Amino acid sequence: MLNIRIEKTKNPKPLPAADDPLKFGTIFTDHMFIMNYETGKGWFDPRVVPYQKIELDPSAMVFHYGQEMFEGLKAYRSEDGKVLLFRPDKNIERANNTNRRICIPEIPEDIFLEAIKTVVKVDEAWVPSKPDTSLYIRPFIIATDPYLGVRPADTYLFMIILSPVGPYYPEGLNPVKIWIEDEYVRAVKGGIGEAKTGGNYVASLASQVKAHEEGYSQVLWLDGIERKYIEEVGAMNIFFKINGTVITPKLNGSILPGVTRDSCIQLCKKWGLTVEEKKISVDEVFKAAEDGTLEEVWGTGTAAVVSPVSHLRWENKVSKIKDGGIGELSKKLYENITGIQLGKIQGPDGWIEVVK
Amino acid sequence: MLNIRIEKTKNPKPLPAADDPLKFGTIFTDHMFIMNYETGKGWFDPRVVPYQKIELDPSAMVFHYGQEMFEGLKAYRSEDGKVLLFRPDKNIERANNTNRRICIPEIPEDIFLEAIKTVVKVDEAWVPSKPDTSLYIRPFIIATDPYLGVRPADTYLFMIILSPVGPYYPEGLNPVKIWIEDEYVRAVKGGIGEAKTGGNYVASLASQVKAHEEGYSQVLWLDGIERKYIEEVGAMNIFFKINGTVITPKLNGSILPGVTRDSCIQLCKKWGLTVEEKKISVDEVFKAAEDGTLEEVWGTGTAAVVSPVSHLRWENKVSKIKDGGIGELSKKLYENITGIQLGKIQGPDGWIEVVK
Repeated sequence: MLNIRIEKTKNPKPLPAADDPLKFGTIFTDHMFIMNYETGKGWFDPRVVPYQKIELDPSAMVFHYGQEMFEGLKAYRSEDGKVLLFRPDKNIERANNTNRRICIPEIPEDIFLEAIKTVVKVDEAWVPSKPDTSLYIRPFIIATDPYLGVRPADTYLFMIILSPVGPYYPEGLNPVKIWIEDEYVRAVKGGIGEAKTGGNYVASLASQVKAHEEGYSQVLWLDGIERKYIEEVGAMNIFFKINGTVITPKLNGSILPGVTRDSCIQLCKKWGLTVEEKKISVDEVFKAAEDGTLEEVWGTGTAAVVSPVSHLRWENKVSKIKDGGIGELSKKLYENITGIQLGKIQGPDGWIEVVK
Repeated sequence: MLNIRIEKTKNPKPLPAADDPLKFGTIFTDHMFIMNYETGKGWFDPRVVPYQKIELDPSAMVFHYGQEMFEGLKAYRSEDGKVLLFRPDKNIERANNTNRRICIPEIPEDIFLEAIKTVVKVDEAWVPSKPDTSLYIRPFIIATDPYLGVRPADTYLFMIILSPVGPYYPEGLNPVKIWIEDEYVRAVKGGIGEAKTGGNYVASLASQVKAHEEGYSQVLWLDGIERKYIEEVGAMNIFFKINGTVITPKLNGSILPGVTRDSCIQLCKKWGLTVEEKKISVDEVFKAAEDGTLEEVWGTGTAAVVSPVSHLRWENKVSKIKDGGIGELSKKLYENITGIQLGKIQGPDGWIEVVK
């Protein structure tokens, strides 16, 4: 067991009001977890302290060379008052995959999980209970050496901050319009696309701005080589139901392996559906839309869980998916996954970790 | 003219000792420049203040989504005691190209230049005068909104920090061994490769570690699509002299447009050499090495100016360039560019900006 020092705040903030919409990523709890790393010493001094600013030298490597990683998961309040985590082991495994790719020292899995559970327990009162609310958990690591040379850092901070969040779409499960990007590229095989690191997100901003201007809320990325195979949506993975078969792009080195993606695949298989993880071109999708075999399109991610897709725009073509409404399978996946997350539905073994 | 507020330090640090090797990027001067940005307000409160740590919310966007950019240039001490900048207009132009690509608000060119000159003037005593030393100037911008959503930030800090630096290779102009990367990819067309932003550097670390382990000091990147065309070295652009012709990869959207690269091209042309900016494959280079037409290879960058290359390793082949020594043209370029930078040789119009 890790010896996590706990220093409680002397000035607790008021909890958000019951009718606060809890806009994603804007409200932070009273405490945060923090742990240091130094080469030769390893990770040390794990502690929960009052939520506070951090002080860094302006030459800190994270500001210059992007050596930073993050994860995102949620704690849910069950009807009987428990606090539950959804598949945190998958986030921790992915975090260490990211760490290896970008030369950040790994964090032992048991320490990572204990850190999450400890800080969530300290701020347990911040886990909201209204429908579709949760406590978003953001672990992240930054390189802190005050040094302008390019190399993996020798010092890091690992932190976990917590943010109560409302429904991703305030109006409920809501179909989104998706812009298929044909100019910019998010990631390419051999690059950092499967790592959860800032460089992938900054690369997506220009495209996101363009899509928003055109009235599309999300960007769907194509592969960086042939510019024809579908990859992911940046904040989500993508699924198609074509002629009864569930299809999602195969993890190829430039797609982030989503935890909700994996959960959808497992549930669909359990329900007897055929699921194919394979290369799928945007042409195939548009053809299926034209011949009427494209039954549903949805995105999956921690923030929105399941997002039905109503429109796909590619070059100058716009394809409306079915009647632009919410597909049956999307709805079933959303209800089942959120049901499992809230402890209302029994999920596969090991999907729920009880904090309290 | 910009009204830059100057607050001088009350505790100046001792200047480095005359025999200090001034290891790159480790020593910082007494002051720094800082300016804020807020959407609706623009860039405001430009100031020179004592060099100090910066305080940020742990949710500051730069820690999570990599919205950060930087530049690198140098101030040189001429024999008659002047302080000179080398082509700062090129760095400023590139900075705004980076800003546009990653959705950071641009900085007016005159304000950018005045900021550099003002902070360098305040710390003028830190510009070293020994041969091959200079004051490295690091302008950078970071996104500071305390917000976990993915979008371009609404608040930024623009800072300039200064670091006196010794010769890049303490033993003088020194041939380097280069590892041609065949597993990882730095950047691809449509991505952020031509922007000077952290995401490109973090992507390079794993390869750099591997190359160092094998005794190579730098990594040469191939294109991300066909994996056969030569791109750049991360900290440098690359040049080949084959059969009398100077060849460097054409800027293609995934190569950083180096200021020293451009300076080398201009000088070579002035000297009557044929310079080709074109796609060049690693195969062509190895063939030229085998048939004896590969006369020289060198890298160009602000840090080392010109780095002769002695060995290229690709897959399991190692090519030794000529006798592994310093080529004539590399040497001439090094001597001319450093001569211009120090005010000893008259360069093309507009290459030198006098600070003092």
